[in-house]
Amino acid sequence: MNTAAIYHRPESEFAYLYDEKTMHVRLRTARGDVREVSLLHGDPYLLDKEKWHQKPLRMTLLMSTDLYDYWFVEVTAPYKRLSYAFSLVGVDGLPVFYGDHGVYPLADEFLTMPNNYFRMPFFQEIDRFKAPEWVKETVWYQIFPERFANGDKSNDPKGTLPWGSQDPDYQDFFGGDLQGVIDHLDYLEDLGINGLYFCPIFEAYSNHKYDTIDYLKIDPAFGDAETFKKLVDECHRRGIKIMLDAVFNHMGDTSPQWKDVLENGEKSKYADWFHVNEFPASYKEGTFFEEATDITYDVFAFTPHMPKLNTANPEVQEHLLAIARYWIEEFDIDAWRLDVANEVDHAFWKKFRQVCDEAKDDFYILGEIWHSSQSWLQGDEFHAVMNYAFTDAIMGYFVKNELSMSKMVSEMNNQLMLYRDQTNQMQFNVLDSHDTPRLLTETKEDKDLMKQVMAFTYIQPGVPCLYYGDEVGMTGKMDPDCRKCMVWEAEKQDLNLHQFTKELIGVRKTNQKILSEGSIHWKQVSEDSGVIVFERKLDGEILTGIFNTGTQEVRAEKAGEVILSNLVTVSDTTVEVSPKGFALFIEK
Amino acid sequence: MNTAAIYHRPESEFAYLYDEKTMHVRLRTARGDVREVSLLHGDPYLLDKEKWHQKPLRMTLLMSTDLYDYWFVEVTAPYKRLSYAFSLVGVDGLPVFYGDHGVYPLADEFLTMPNNYFRMPFFQEIDRFKAPEWVKETVWYQIFPERFANGDKSNDPKGTLPWGSQDPDYQDFFGGDLQGVIDHLDYLEDLGINGLYFCPIFEAYSNHKYDTIDYLKIDPAFGDAETFKKLVDECHRRGIKIMLDAVFNHMGDTSPQWKDVLENGEKSKYADWFHVNEFPASYKEGTFFEEATDITYDVFAFTPHMPKLNTANPEVQEHLLAIARYWIEEFDIDAWRLDVANEVDHAFWKKFRQVCDEAKDDFYILGEIWHSSQSWLQGDEFHAVMNYAFTDAIMGYFVKNELSMSKMVSEMNNQLMLYRDQTNQMQFNVLDSHDTPRLLTETKEDKDLMKQVMAFTYIQPGVPCLYYGDEVGMTGKMDPDCRKCMVWEAEKQDLNLHQFTKELIGVRKTNQKILSEGSIHWKQVSEDSGVIVFERKLDGEILTGIFNTGTQEVRAEKAGEVILSNLVTVSDTTVEVSPKGFALFIEK
Repeated sequence: MNTAAIYHRPESEFAYLYDEKTMHVRLRTARGDVREVSLLHGDPYLLDKEKWHQKPLRMTLLMSTDLYDYWFVEVTAPYKRLSYAFSLVGVDGLPVFYGDHGVYPLADEFLTMPNNYFRMPFFQEIDRFKAPEWVKETVWYQIFPERFANGDKSNDPKGTLPWGSQDPDYQDFFGGDLQGVIDHLDYLEDLGINGLYFCPIFEAYSNHKYDTIDYLKIDPAFGDAETFKKLVDECHRRGIKIMLDAVFNHMGDTSPQWKDVLENGEKSKYADWFHVNEFPASYKEGTFFEEATDITYDVFAFTPHMPKLNTANPEVQEHLLAIARYWIEEFDIDAWRLDVANEVDHAFWKKFRQVCDEAKDDFYILGEIWHSSQSWLQGDEFHAVMNYAFTDAIMGYFVKNELSMSKMVSEMNNQLMLYRDQTNQMQFNVLDSHDTPRLLTETKEDKDLMKQVMAFTYIQPGVPCLYYGDEVGMTGKMDPDCRKCMVWEAEKQDLNLHQFTKELIGVRKTNQKILSEGSIHWKQVSEDSGVIVFERKLDGEILTGIFNTGTQEVRAEKAGEVILSNLVTVSDTTVEVSPKGFALFIEK
Repeated sequence: MNTAAIYHRPESEFAYLYDEKTMHVRLRTARGDVREVSLLHGDPYLLDKEKWHQKPLRMTLLMSTDLYDYWFVEVTAPYKRLSYAFSLVGVDGLPVFYGDHGVYPLADEFLTMPNNYFRMPFFQEIDRFKAPEWVKETVWYQIFPERFANGDKSNDPKGTLPWGSQDPDYQDFFGGDLQGVIDHLDYLEDLGINGLYFCPIFEAYSNHKYDTIDYLKIDPAFGDAETFKKLVDECHRRGIKIMLDAVFNHMGDTSPQWKDVLENGEKSKYADWFHVNEFPASYKEGTFFEEATDITYDVFAFTPHMPKLNTANPEVQEHLLAIARYWIEEFDIDAWRLDVANEVDHAFWKKFRQVCDEAKDDFYILGEIWHSSQSWLQGDEFHAVMNYAFTDAIMGYFVKNELSMSKMVSEMNNQLMLYRDQTNQMQFNVLDSHDTPRLLTETKEDKDLMKQVMAFTYIQPGVPCLYYGDEVGMTGKMDPDCRKCMVWEAEKQDLNLHQFTKELIGVRKTNQKILSEGSIHWKQVSEDSGVIVFERKLDGEILTGIFNTGTQEVRAEKAGEVILSNLVTVSDTTVEVSPKGFALFIEK
């Protein structure tokens, strides 16, 4: 047995409370190396008396990556305390014991030592990762406010270009605003989405508003507090949740605080609000902002226009936490998305979480993190992160041809095994955003491929997010091109794609429970034929997806009632799936 | 290469800030499987520009366990942000790349993808694990107050037995008190210890005081606030730190709060202070307290006399945190030792840490946890735990013959690799305590073996703690026998052992820096001869220990000046070490 590959970590994604009384336990072993895994478990104080080490509980093989098998079991504990370890049988028949002090022969002398067991010392409800239920039921729609709709010409900034008159450049304004969103709520409701994720809407200098001037003020070009209040109320009336973008890593360099630092240097009352390494705060302008040099203060990336906030400073904390509270309490928003969340300290996010929890029940916190994120997802900071690492694997295979099919599966499973199930159920799955090329552009304008990859993504764990305009066939290369004006003229919209998206959203919402909580089964992963058959199972129900990523038509048995398909011929008992086609089935 | 055995976890003991500007990076590989490991690292936003993935930094082989090699390197980051991954060369010559998405061939196509790298997103000083420096300089002495010395007959409880007149039973009282400690501070100062760790001293029913009645009151049989204040002041004057035992997992069942619950049931204002699963709170008395049954409330282990506190209740939190603050602010104590710390929730301990940090700079928090403890040692809860897992390995080889020499080494190294270096430097190393048999009893009263195992332990990372009376040759089986009255009559004390202990403490204190921070080298681990040669190195200085655990005398070259030894003949260039003997050398 490859004993060096065995891994477990107590009080982590390998061992956590799922609900008040249920603990999830995972174990990692080398792929194909172990035949059977059992959990030995019982009360820490009753090992002698109950001899529970003699009562193994079989674990199931949950999923595999290229290197690993992951085993799983659910347990409970009558006294809310648990000691546990693992007994494994290798494919070679060799049994071993694995516990808190490593690998031993499966012999009584080791099994009867209480200290050889891992511990879940007490089932602490207060420490459990808790997730707002409504998030699982949500299909998000991301709006870049300057480009969604211009509902109020009176607030257009100087030099506003006619709507959609040209592809956007970095500094362009087209007049999009909140009234524009209100005006199109019927459209959004009809599409079926039930969560709106807004890029920043607070007063800022740029069109993207990531360089905040005043976090307590709606950008005048977008409307005012009243408009925003009306938007939230209208959305809530329609069952649509609101998520705002909190840019707390840095401020804009035209904010009063930063201007005061520039003016008064070390004597500024805001001198310690930022990370100024050497006064005066300064930089040498480059030909373009990325190339500025000799910046004497910490910034986002290398842009001098976004001085990094010192979130370890209690005054800054108080300022930002008051902002977090204000928009929840005064406007009843439902979620914060946190920009560059990984570069802000954990101590701050823990306080932020407490403020949000106090301000509103079931509030959702989503961090922008592109890499593995366990340390933010322990239950006392975020609920989820923007799941690029997961959807990148999907894009890498389906669209970009960078990964093999099996590597995609491996990487998706790997990502799922980084987090608790509660997290996986509300990870934020994006195929594109204001920070990436649009999906249709990535598929080289192949709409069938786009439909296939969307369908595949919408049946994964986690909640999908649609980037505004994708549903009507908008294209766009990397920023700023992906931030074009929304196309509203029906004749320029792809109504077929719109209808498809609407149906897919419907499938997601109708089958929300199985798609959130259902177990995952890769029924077929065939590099040769290009066929993927993927299943979700819950309470006897099965939702199956078949995806033909190959070059030949394939015939397959129907796995229940067809609920959505593309490029598929359905007969009584079989389906014929063309290349780039897919079918989703439900069997109850 | 055994790629499945490679492990790294960002923002954990594998990747952490050591000081403000220095990050420690560790990597685990299968033992003997990898020839060379390098770190690829640089600013996340400069991978393209600086091509730092082409500039590997060699890592060193830090230590090994039976299954693993651990590699290590220190790095810094000019912009306080770091992306990093690993390039490895197997003993078979095969190179691989290991990063945030697993193992890949060492090829540019993978190395140039920014998302393939692990991240330390920003060097956050506020999140760094910070450790009070004084702890490293401390040799602790544990006092069980009822048994150390009776300095005030007037506060003796009813039925107090004459000092040392018999071996203690569970319910006996002998009259030990705080004045007794004050009376013997000269003795303790002369011994050289500079930290006193007291078992509970607050009002409680039993002799061990783990069943608290009133946390704000010194137990009347021990003295009063004034006595304690005098004790602290006297100790501080002598450079001795004070650590008290906080029993916050449970209260005594004679506390007013619990009595109120018994009296008023669900209507008690303390009803939610505990975990009562069914009112009325009750149990069926057994013949002995462990055998009580049908307890309708959560308790410590299975003892109905210790009802578990509901530390998720804000009122309980406030009550306990006020206590934590009171003894620091009013009496200037230096540390809290937390009883049954693992069974109290993390949310509470995080608040507890904040309260202590606010109340006093450089306050030390030590948790009683017997199993692996990463989740309490992230920097926002405890500084260290009682290091039984580490010293058990030492006892298991030297004293109990349960482990082989190589398994001991493996397990000690394994324990060190569970925690950050800051933690390792202040782990609390106990060879015995009020909860275990005494060391001299475990060694079957072999004083040479006792000296050998003490010397071996005192040169390990972590701070040693001496259990009262060990130094004068006291024996004792498991509790209550290990809680005998301190022997004060010179003629009954082993003065040779006392002198030895004093010298060993001196060695520890004189060489504190190298013993805290020095690197670890197992120069010789010889199962055949029984010889262990163990080195610590720092700034060109080397402290070496040679231990003969075999049956034959061994001759070895002197590794510098002999600073302490037992059963050793020293000549000009060599030493002859008898079985159970040892020598410590220093080379500057």
